[in-house]
Amino acid sequence: MSTIRVTVWNEFRHEKEKDAVKSIYPDGMHEAIAAYLRQQPGLAVRTATLDEPEHGLTEEVLAETDVLTWWGHAAHAEVQDEIVDRVQARILDGMGLIVLHSGHFSKIFKHMMGTSCALKWREVAEKERLWVVNPVHPITQGLGPYIELPHTEMYGEPFDIPTPDKVIFISWFAGGEVFRSGATWTRGKGKIFYFRPGHETFPIFHNPEILKVIENAVRWAAFAGSAAVDMSVAKVEPLEDLPTQD
Amino acid sequence: MSTIRVTVWNEFRHEKEKDAVKSIYPDGMHEAIAAYLRQQPGLAVRTATLDEPEHGLTEEVLAETDVLTWWGHAAHAEVQDEIVDRVQARILDGMGLIVLHSGHFSKIFKHMMGTSCALKWREVAEKERLWVVNPVHPITQGLGPYIELPHTEMYGEPFDIPTPDKVIFISWFAGGEVFRSGATWTRGKGKIFYFRPGHETFPIFHNPEILKVIENAVRWAAFAGSAAVDMSVAKVEPLEDLPTQD
Amino acid sequence: MSTIRVTVWNEFRHEKEKDAVKSIYPDGMHEAIAAYLRQQPGLAVRTATLDEPEHGLTEEVLAETDVLTWWGHAAHAEVQDEIVDRVQARILDGMGLIVLHSGHFSKIFKHMMGTSCALKWREVAEKERLWVVNPVHPITQGLGPYIELPHTEMYGEPFDIPTPDKVIFISWFAGGEVFRSGATWTRGKGKIFYFRPGHETFPIFHNPEILKVIENAVRWAAFAGSAAVDMSVAKVEPLEDLPTQD
Amino acid sequence: MSTIRVTVWNEFRHEKEKDAVKSIYPDGMHEAIAAYLRQQPGLAVRTATLDEPEHGLTEEVLAETDVLTWWGHAAHAEVQDEIVDRVQARILDGMGLIVLHSGHFSKIFKHMMGTSCALKWREVAEKERLWVVNPVHPITQGLGPYIELPHTEMYGEPFDIPTPDKVIFISWFAGGEVFRSGATWTRGKGKIFYFRPGHETFPIFHNPEILKVIENAVRWAAFAGSAAVDMSVAKVEPLEDLPTQD
Repeated sequence: MSTIRVTVWNEFRHEKEKDAVKSIYPDGMHEAIAAYLRQQPGLAVRTATLDEPEHGLTEEVLAETDVLTWWGHAAHAEVQDEIVDRVQARILDGMGLIVLHSGHFSKIFKHMMGTSCALKWREVAEKERLWVVNPVHPITQGLGPYIELPHTEMYGEPFDIPTPDKVIFISWFAGGEVFRSGATWTRGKGKIFYFRPGHETFPIFHNPEILKVIENAVRWAAFAGSAAVDMSVAKVEPLEDLPTQD
Repeated sequence: MSTIRVTVWNEFRHEKEKDAVKSIYPDGMHEAIAAYLRQQPGLAVRTATLDEPEHGLTEEVLAETDVLTWWGHAAHAEVQDEIVDRVQARILDGMGLIVLHSGHFSKIFKHMMGTSCALKWREVAEKERLWVVNPVHPITQGLGPYIELPHTEMYGEPFDIPTPDKVIFISWFAGGEVFRSGATWTRGKGKIFYFRPGHETFPIFHNPEILKVIENAVRWAAFAGSAAVDMSVAKVEPLEDLPTQD
Repeated sequence: MSTIRVTVWNEFRHEKEKDAVKSIYPDGMHEAIAAYLRQQPGLAVRTATLDEPEHGLTEEVLAETDVLTWWGHAAHAEVQDEIVDRVQARILDGMGLIVLHSGHFSKIFKHMMGTSCALKWREVAEKERLWVVNPVHPITQGLGPYIELPHTEMYGEPFDIPTPDKVIFISWFAGGEVFRSGATWTRGKGKIFYFRPGHETFPIFHNPEILKVIENAVRWAAFAGSAAVDMSVAKVEPLEDLPTQD
Repeated sequence: MSTIRVTVWNEFRHEKEKDAVKSIYPDGMHEAIAAYLRQQPGLAVRTATLDEPEHGLTEEVLAETDVLTWWGHAAHAEVQDEIVDRVQARILDGMGLIVLHSGHFSKIFKHMMGTSCALKWREVAEKERLWVVNPVHPITQGLGPYIELPHTEMYGEPFDIPTPDKVIFISWFAGGEVFRSGATWTRGKGKIFYFRPGHETFPIFHNPEILKVIENAVRWAAFAGSAAVDMSVAKVEPLEDLPTQD
């Protein structure tokens, strides 16, 4: 199996602006995720952030990216439409996309889903338990029946997403809600995974089980289909003899 | 059951510009479809076209539309983005959408799908046979095992669409291709049906079986879910007592 | 719309054997459900129970049944295999099936699903909240964002079912679990809905929202597809001229 | 990645009874498939046939099988129900199942699907073209846009199967029909792939593209999920403190 090239994208603003976040992620959430992934076999990892030129997502970077992970929150609107279109085109051409937490409201996720991606929320540091509801899926490899997070922001249903190909995790929250916290879709030749945990004020991306899920998702999302099937529009000739028109 | 309010939308250019099309649809394809639907019980039908102000799709018209049908081809790019966003918002809020034939490349369909909606095509007036593969679906009511069209434009796979909720029809073409010619999705509170036939140079919208499918789809796509469930984003209070934070 | 003929099936043992159950359902759970349905327009309702001849499910009864609801628990094994096969054949031919609560372990549900239909459970009368996650589905008509049940038996994930066509409800339980409490499938020409609530020691089938869901499900599950499409095996002749074999 | 243990199962009657079949598969179709798979890296292959004791599918063999492929036709009824139940239990516990051609009417496939698995058919050696409709799926790896088979038995829609998780191939037949020729499902912890080609009187299992699909399917179907998540029924204790009952 060849190396999977991962680009870990982060808005990277909260970590610079809020001490509470900086203390948990001094180098940014992207570095917490990337540091973990770099230790895993078969992965080549780089990072990119909003304030880099072209948000760090040049044509060259995307061409060399097999799987892109995305965390954004306060600055979704600052992501340029041109870059969003570029990312979408690359996904349709086979790049995997892993959307984390508040990335549900990113332009790229909403573009891929076609829905509002709205949800209910509150931030009172309540307990969350992510139940594995699809233990045959490779994203669950190495997990037990659930992941427990002592303190999280809450996301509640209804979550305005298209019918997922597969629901992998359903969360229970102490305050009384549930949420489809892990779900997959395919779009074009690209695989997409949404994963709910990751609020910036909690050390979610230091949790070994959360990191394992991200690693599993990266391996799952890397393209492994038919490179020779062209999905672009084209005029084609008949493959069979056709009767002469009257 | 209350009346279903249908708006039949048409680009309405070919019928004005090409004699071959005008001779088949002197008042436009929208009038052929609307005339049929007006004869069916429980439907209130209006039309709208590209060259009307706001493409005939004002806030008021959309608010009074339960199901919108869409035919476009040469002028997809002329549909204003603002109107596309308005239609998308209305779909997510519960309006049904029925996309016909070359509407696969319309802005609204691509926005709802998140994919390129590309396909293979040719126009040699070959035979098409649409097989019913999901006879439990209400869109198939009244049909036999297949619909045969003696002369059609061909659309071939791969069709770059998200996994449909349901595939209803699969077409066979004399030239050697197949196509998922009828498929459904839901987005937000809206139901979507794509239906392949409808090339402007053939009398497809005079075919009783094709018209029956459109009628069935209109009835299926009208909202019948929970009006009281709010899918917008909102901050909510806990429903359960939570332990005091340390 | 023609009348929907409903047969409400019940094991009807607990109500005869346990005073706690009898006090809630003196005539059996089937009568509580049937009494409600009989008051709704367009439904013709009968009941059938395990200890009747052929479990009340003769060929004649099934032929006259559009939708069958099923509640069983302690005596799944007493349902004759011949009757199960008969019910399965009728479902594939277009009868709807609504499986309630402990019916998840009935022979008919396991036959239709092909899985173990196993789940986690406990009975400590805890609170359940069924969240509507699919408000576009007609089964949710008339509901608010959730149904709250003060005291229920708990069912927890993983629930060993095939990927549902649609998940309608996800439950939150006070003890910490979640569950896909409402889900749909199609099999042959039949529509199937599983609905979790309904433990015999709680007055679940006196709850107006629960009864509304059952009514909605009955209307949804009644066959409305293509009667003329034959799904049986058959040898067929070519529809096109074929080249003579060499 | 560890070795995938494959068991290639075959009814192995036609090859002994009909010269036309024997000439194509002198050692049986299972040996044609197994010989190919044995040459591929990371696979350990054995075979089993109907007339062996326990059909070659003892508890020991199944325990050591990661993926089972199945070809049967004339003797479906001779497969013992006890063995079918054993295979089903092993699938639900994580064994992959690949069902080939006339295996659509096998007991095991019908048990896993819950439907009749009926279809239309004829045998006039017509041309088939299997179109790849899901090029992101690993089963399509290495394929072009379609596989062409000059002479095949025809299978036509409607195919009475549950909504597949994914449709991979759709076939075009010269005689005018279409068919969902490759489709996937999951059941319990097991992955299932149905693949249409494989009529015994044609050298289908000598076709490199067909063999490649089977190899891809074997790799895809091997369990890669969570071994630690228990899907059996169990009574569980609350994970949260519950209020004392009144």
